[in-house]
Amino acid sequence: MTKRKVRVAVNGYGVIGKRVADAIVRQDDMELVGIADIAHDFRVKVATVRGYPVYAADPTKQDEMTANGVNVQGKLDDLLRLAEVVVDCTPRGTGAKYKPIYEKAGVKAIFQGGESHDLTGFSFTAQANYGEALDRNLVRVVSANTTGIVRVVGALKKWGLLKEARIVLFRGGVNPEDGYTHGGITSFIPERGVPSHQGPDTKLVIPDLPIVTMAGTGPGTLGHVHYAMVGTIWTVTARELRDCLLAAPRIAIVRFDQGLSSAIALTELMEDILRPRADMWEVAFWEDGISTNKDEVFFTYQIDNEAIVIPENIDAIRAVSGLEREAGVSISMTDASLGLTKHFIPGHRA
Amino acid sequence: MTKRKVRVAVNGYGVIGKRVADAIVRQDDMELVGIADIAHDFRVKVATVRGYPVYAADPTKQDEMTANGVNVQGKLDDLLRLAEVVVDCTPRGTGAKYKPIYEKAGVKAIFQGGESHDLTGFSFTAQANYGEALDRNLVRVVSANTTGIVRVVGALKKWGLLKEARIVLFRGGVNPEDGYTHGGITSFIPERGVPSHQGPDTKLVIPDLPIVTMAGTGPGTLGHVHYAMVGTIWTVTARELRDCLLAAPRIAIVRFDQGLSSAIALTELMEDILRPRADMWEVAFWEDGISTNKDEVFFTYQIDNEAIVIPENIDAIRAVSGLEREAGVSISMTDASLGLTKHFIPGHRA
Amino acid sequence: MTKRKVRVAVNGYGVIGKRVADAIVRQDDMELVGIADIAHDFRVKVATVRGYPVYAADPTKQDEMTANGVNVQGKLDDLLRLAEVVVDCTPRGTGAKYKPIYEKAGVKAIFQGGESHDLTGFSFTAQANYGEALDRNLVRVVSANTTGIVRVVGALKKWGLLKEARIVLFRGGVNPEDGYTHGGITSFIPERGVPSHQGPDTKLVIPDLPIVTMAGTGPGTLGHVHYAMVGTIWTVTARELRDCLLAAPRIAIVRFDQGLSSAIALTELMEDILRPRADMWEVAFWEDGISTNKDEVFFTYQIDNEAIVIPENIDAIRAVSGLEREAGVSISMTDASLGLTKHFIPGHRA
Amino acid sequence: MTKRKVRVAVNGYGVIGKRVADAIVRQDDMELVGIADIAHDFRVKVATVRGYPVYAADPTKQDEMTANGVNVQGKLDDLLRLAEVVVDCTPRGTGAKYKPIYEKAGVKAIFQGGESHDLTGFSFTAQANYGEALDRNLVRVVSANTTGIVRVVGALKKWGLLKEARIVLFRGGVNPEDGYTHGGITSFIPERGVPSHQGPDTKLVIPDLPIVTMAGTGPGTLGHVHYAMVGTIWTVTARELRDCLLAAPRIAIVRFDQGLSSAIALTELMEDILRPRADMWEVAFWEDGISTNKDEVFFTYQIDNEAIVIPENIDAIRAVSGLEREAGVSISMTDASLGLTKHFIPGHRA
Repeated sequence: MTKRKVRVAVNGYGVIGKRVADAIVRQDDMELVGIADIAHDFRVKVATVRGYPVYAADPTKQDEMTANGVNVQGKLDDLLRLAEVVVDCTPRGTGAKYKPIYEKAGVKAIFQGGESHDLTGFSFTAQANYGEALDRNLVRVVSANTTGIVRVVGALKKWGLLKEARIVLFRGGVNPEDGYTHGGITSFIPERGVPSHQGPDTKLVIPDLPIVTMAGTGPGTLGHVHYAMVGTIWTVTARELRDCLLAAPRIAIVRFDQGLSSAIALTELMEDILRPRADMWEVAFWEDGISTNKDEVFFTYQIDNEAIVIPENIDAIRAVSGLEREAGVSISMTDASLGLTKHFIPGHRA
Repeated sequence: MTKRKVRVAVNGYGVIGKRVADAIVRQDDMELVGIADIAHDFRVKVATVRGYPVYAADPTKQDEMTANGVNVQGKLDDLLRLAEVVVDCTPRGTGAKYKPIYEKAGVKAIFQGGESHDLTGFSFTAQANYGEALDRNLVRVVSANTTGIVRVVGALKKWGLLKEARIVLFRGGVNPEDGYTHGGITSFIPERGVPSHQGPDTKLVIPDLPIVTMAGTGPGTLGHVHYAMVGTIWTVTARELRDCLLAAPRIAIVRFDQGLSSAIALTELMEDILRPRADMWEVAFWEDGISTNKDEVFFTYQIDNEAIVIPENIDAIRAVSGLEREAGVSISMTDASLGLTKHFIPGHRA
Repeated sequence: MTKRKVRVAVNGYGVIGKRVADAIVRQDDMELVGIADIAHDFRVKVATVRGYPVYAADPTKQDEMTANGVNVQGKLDDLLRLAEVVVDCTPRGTGAKYKPIYEKAGVKAIFQGGESHDLTGFSFTAQANYGEALDRNLVRVVSANTTGIVRVVGALKKWGLLKEARIVLFRGGVNPEDGYTHGGITSFIPERGVPSHQGPDTKLVIPDLPIVTMAGTGPGTLGHVHYAMVGTIWTVTARELRDCLLAAPRIAIVRFDQGLSSAIALTELMEDILRPRADMWEVAFWEDGISTNKDEVFFTYQIDNEAIVIPENIDAIRAVSGLEREAGVSISMTDASLGLTKHFIPGHRA
Repeated sequence: MTKRKVRVAVNGYGVIGKRVADAIVRQDDMELVGIADIAHDFRVKVATVRGYPVYAADPTKQDEMTANGVNVQGKLDDLLRLAEVVVDCTPRGTGAKYKPIYEKAGVKAIFQGGESHDLTGFSFTAQANYGEALDRNLVRVVSANTTGIVRVVGALKKWGLLKEARIVLFRGGVNPEDGYTHGGITSFIPERGVPSHQGPDTKLVIPDLPIVTMAGTGPGTLGHVHYAMVGTIWTVTARELRDCLLAAPRIAIVRFDQGLSSAIALTELMEDILRPRADMWEVAFWEDGISTNKDEVFFTYQIDNEAIVIPENIDAIRAVSGLEREAGVSISMTDASLGLTKHFIPGHRA
């Protein structure tokens, strides 16, 4: 019996879009029918090399793309006709413009965290609310930082130990939703206002999550670091916190005493284990950085802002298309296809 | 009646030492008898231009300094003979080597936060424990981050509102105690272990201060940002928090809505108000970044890691030499001499 | 006899504008009648603190500025009525919009290098073509890099030794003409096309200058470094090259062996000699970095992109207003008023 | 007939060592018998995961490595007994310490450019002097920048067009030979002295190459950019220069107009074409950045400082072990095994 494959298009082939496309290709139950973009740069040309049919996201750009050597197969409308689901990876705030086009074409649409919650009415993280995404027409995968918080604080909640979470998060100066920019910043910029948007954003996924976040941006380009200070219902040991985090999906363990003391070292580790684009799809928490103090635990974790939402997008495709109704099954399929792990270094001391 | 002037030497003419020397010269009750160093670079040569007598901190370097064009007046021992107090601004951890030399010369000595508490048995911040420093022979001015925390959290304690403080602090990658290095870092580096050293360090100045700190380092070079989450005894408004902070010495107010949204903007402001070396001796807190939530207040403040300890060093000189027995009087004298303020922009909306 | 003072306005109070305003105030023969801007941030408020009357550059912004606490004296038209000369320091490319306003008001106007040559028909560097600027209505002061090249290569030409110059220049990622941005870049970006615009731009000032330039941008924020490879008509020694450069105005000497081995060290030196905003108005060349090889000399020099054009603007004011007809006299007046030097460290080995 | 495989060890498993090991494994005529190091961090543990036997480079460290979870197979001496050739990738300047150990063990040794030429008496780049390396006991692969220059300027020489080359090169602040450091710099640092060491270093490979180099270091971490100004014997067109460069091995073509305008974009391209660790083994020159002016050509090229010497090391192994006597054959084998190309984007406009 031939397995049914859902036909998926990706609109916007930037930092997130190209990763989503690559991940779709690795799924047994999905078929990438093509990608759409408006550019004619190296990224789009490599898409052709990779065998991905390329379409013009803006019909008025098709000729320019063709003239500049892109092998364009047609317009976005042509692509959408082939698809059941489209993953919108266009630049922050652009999704709203495309939503009516997707709706008119009768395809289900998945948006990224750079779009507003109101665009879809539903914000998604696989571990938290996969079931509610089933068969929906519109889903928004929350941003990298929010995804990470939902995984981590959601795990603490599920374990029953969570009283209240305080998280200070430092964003590297380039966000995946910023798209193609190579810009950066040269100074720390504290974010005005508390809570920062990530706190409320998590509550769109897990209602009433007791959390407050503060945020800042720094000149780093290699990911986000979160400082968690979590009040607990009972006195939690470092060991129990570790077990709680490892029991949750898409959270992996790293250690300072293995030289993994910075974002750049984690990137090097991802390179060394041959991850494509050095992507770290997991949240990585420092096992030997956990500290406890009566009813409070303290720990830090790292988020790869270009990679962490990729498995969530795959699960979202599976949910909206109804391919799989169990969150755990979809998560396992996605993770196996990409190679997510709990221990980047098998056999390490734990 | 001629006012008595205490004779002060500065050993180590780097980031901190040159600022301390400049500040001493501005005091009516102090005389800078000279500075000592082991280098023969532009910094030491400018000291001569500024009229500061230069001595060889290491007697074996005197000839090399002279040969390279430094107008050396003698050796450290010669300098110490002229001094009642020496401010040690040598590189982190080097003070221990000099301590016996200072003791043998019979001069009181003030060290920086890069030295251990045990070297002096007394850690100092003017607002907190000036009285205990009176007539002491050895004093350690705590580091920039700790000084900032003592000012801020100490102010909350004095106001009576403090229940417990949680502070996540981000250090720029270059610390004044690192001395002459031009090195930096290119990645976020979370500090292993909670609390970070600043928490316990504040308790050397204010015993039993209810505080926990987490720390990280980033590639910034323009100061430190602290994220404060403070549990309060009663429900505190943003207005009351502002009043509490402004009532304490050496804390000034800035606003995001005046374009002061980053460390680099604060540096520009210091340049625009013609501060020497763009130094910000005050802690700057963002008035319009204060947020409250029942019995918790949230705010951010900025610390200029090269400048904040300078007024503390001046007060420490005054305390150990017994020139002035009242903390408030010394603080006022120091602040007036340097030009500290509560409002960098007079007449701004508040 | 009271000396005549030319009445000058500054439009645009950013990186360049505020420095020009400060420099005007230091001139005996100039009066700053006011500055204009469209913002209401800390910069403009500090202008008021400094005693500079503030006007609304855009009349529709006046109310907003006032509502936000800026003490606005009137509109740009009001300011121009008080002025004989206006220095346009508005963001890159904005000057063209203001030119008709200046012309209508009957004031002479000086623009910055971010505007096109065609806007004024005349590009200016004091050392090269002061005489041609006399009594002109419109002058463009060339950009920081071009000013530096004109000073240096112009000096070589005047000495008679210049055969041909090749210069590779590295721009820090933030340009003064970019105005208020705190953005930056995180990667080397070679400039496409040879020659880069600076080469032709110098020829607008010194016709037929035999020069080619290549350029790149890097993540630095502390100025520009130029690598000069200069073919000479006779065999030039390092000593002669040094003498040639020192004989020209606004070129100063620094040495690697004094620890001045990087842009950040030069900034520290400017701070140490108490320059306002650590500004270096001079081109600084490394005396002990000069190398020679038969008929070619090699050397490096540094340009402070925020400061180098300031004295040129002052001279331009003097030229267009006819206050002084001799270039050398104007340059000397400007340099004395600001404190330019040949030797940042008097008495240094040379 | 079974093909003979040369048995190779790698000492030092850092930035270069791990890449050399991975490349050896891809060769049909080589066998990686193991790697040696003194650390017990994640890098070494991943080596085990990759199936590379790990040895203690310093016998006194073996117990510590074992205690920290590294599966150590023995000491360096044990490893060398299994090997015919060792590739020394220890930190800069450390190779000299190991040379007598390699000699005593009777293995041929290949060192990196961080060691002095005198250590081996022979400096190597495959395209230039493969034949001279045949059967040698000691070879030094020159540094990344020098390798790049030899490839490019060597190509111009071979084509017969080279009169004289002037190259200004900008190094990112982290060099592969610096090993494990995550340090960086925050300011441009011009290199004192002309020529910089790369110029003379190329002449160790190609005697009498008419070249002068100037160098600087900047805060970039993504490779080196070279600015070439080349005097030619006849008038060369951009087209001919392109053909000349493409005719030489290990030089590839990129274009600004494909969005490949910075080092970070090239890294992204390497990720997109699924290169391991985003390594670019080729020199990349900008085709649409070539400019000409009578008898001089101007162009820029980029060097991946972590990757460019890897194929050279493989060829060096082949040469010293006498596996292959023809440079062209070895180069082709190496390039095919790794996947080097002339056109990262097949079918691009040229």
